[in-house]
Amino acid sequence: MTYELYYWPYIQGRGEFIRLALEDAGAAYNDVARGKEEDGEGIPALLAIMNSKDAERPPFAPPFLKAGKLVIAQTANILLYLGETEGLAPASVAGRHWANEIQLNLADFLVEVHDTHHPIAKSLYYEDQKPESKKRSELFIKERIPKFLGWYEKLLARNTSKKGWLIGAKLSYPDLSLFQVVEGLRYALPNAMKKAEKDVPRVIELRDKVAARPNIKAYLASTRRIPFNEKGIFRRYPELDS
Amino acid sequence: MTYELYYWPYIQGRGEFIRLALEDAGAAYNDVARGKEEDGEGIPALLAIMNSKDAERPPFAPPFLKAGKLVIAQTANILLYLGETEGLAPASVAGRHWANEIQLNLADFLVEVHDTHHPIAKSLYYEDQKPESKKRSELFIKERIPKFLGWYEKLLARNTSKKGWLIGAKLSYPDLSLFQVVEGLRYALPNAMKKAEKDVPRVIELRDKVAARPNIKAYLASTRRIPFNEKGIFRRYPELDS
Repeated sequence: MTYELYYWPYIQGRGEFIRLALEDAGAAYNDVARGKEEDGEGIPALLAIMNSKDAERPPFAPPFLKAGKLVIAQTANILLYLGETEGLAPASVAGRHWANEIQLNLADFLVEVHDTHHPIAKSLYYEDQKPESKKRSELFIKERIPKFLGWYEKLLARNTSKKGWLIGAKLSYPDLSLFQVVEGLRYALPNAMKKAEKDVPRVIELRDKVAARPNIKAYLASTRRIPFNEKGIFRRYPELDS
Repeated sequence: MTYELYYWPYIQGRGEFIRLALEDAGAAYNDVARGKEEDGEGIPALLAIMNSKDAERPPFAPPFLKAGKLVIAQTANILLYLGETEGLAPASVAGRHWANEIQLNLADFLVEVHDTHHPIAKSLYYEDQKPESKKRSELFIKERIPKFLGWYEKLLARNTSKKGWLIGAKLSYPDLSLFQVVEGLRYALPNAMKKAEKDVPRVIELRDKVAARPNIKAYLASTRRIPFNEKGIFRRYPELDS
């Protein structure tokens, strides 16, 4: 089966967390909204599912994944599914819920990253909420980055398997997502991250281990990896950095 | 087995979504942080787990649930677990992921509700971010309430079972959470909700059906239901209402 991923084609965004899982697993997938309209793909194909007048279970927002007849939305929910089908998570009840718990924490962190440049409303431009963004970013850098990264560092230190992964002795999907969060923060807030990284050496080691995995390495070097930009979640606005 | 729920004792907050599921299921549970310190309960019992120096899987934040040896955090993750153990979700793969998808959407909505009074930082008081809260609330009322409630209304309209629940022909845990969101919005933003409710009659019918369930009715009338207040997620600040 070839999975179909539906996500905005211009940004990494939340879709990137799904791409990294599919790429690491070596799964066959079609990034539909990046295809050509004349082939029945592109954004119209995404919107056709979103705006369907009779779908019983219409997604609220991208990303969503088609796996055969199943359509699954919400990043952490898609990863929960792929964790099982692609062997990217422990099989035990305890392990599956622990992977989901870490992923949901990463999702919470991501909302806070987004709100550093959109503290007032998603529907307004950054330029319309700059003073508020500066205030929010200062406290995000001071309080939230250390709190979240510090938790991941603690989990890595306490994982008795000592293989450098978040859960047990092998990679699971939250490792891939944590890699992406580090990459994103390095892009968006390089000064703040330079300082923050000193306190989380295990997180950075994990980032390096993920980057070195053959499938991920090939993916990052390919055109399938959309560059970071100022339309996504992680945006480089130097005035927000420390 | 008696579940142990750990959550801040002063507020409904995210813990309330767990309480509603446990109460509706008639499950035996101990709301530990509301117990007495001399019995080894209360907030110190919660903090002992949070701040454990050697737990391999320490929760990032409450709520968390102890189920035998398992400790599970993140509201949607706990509900995913209870959905299975307490029969509060469909058993099929598609049904479980659909319930989780709706719950994660409700979680997203809840973050936006919280940020109406905390757009700049969780660590600041509301009084220190009032002008920003007013701006955020105006757009939340205008854009976000109709968008989220409108999606739930659509799901109810399209559920082919036509029994008034979000999924299939019987109640599942997202129904209980949607009830709580309606109750919370009615408390926090009564004027805005009075207007918004006109467009979502099925959501309001669902709210009424949940409130009439014997276990929920008994719970809401009991002292176990903490009243809404201005320390929780849903706060009544009249200046933020329409």
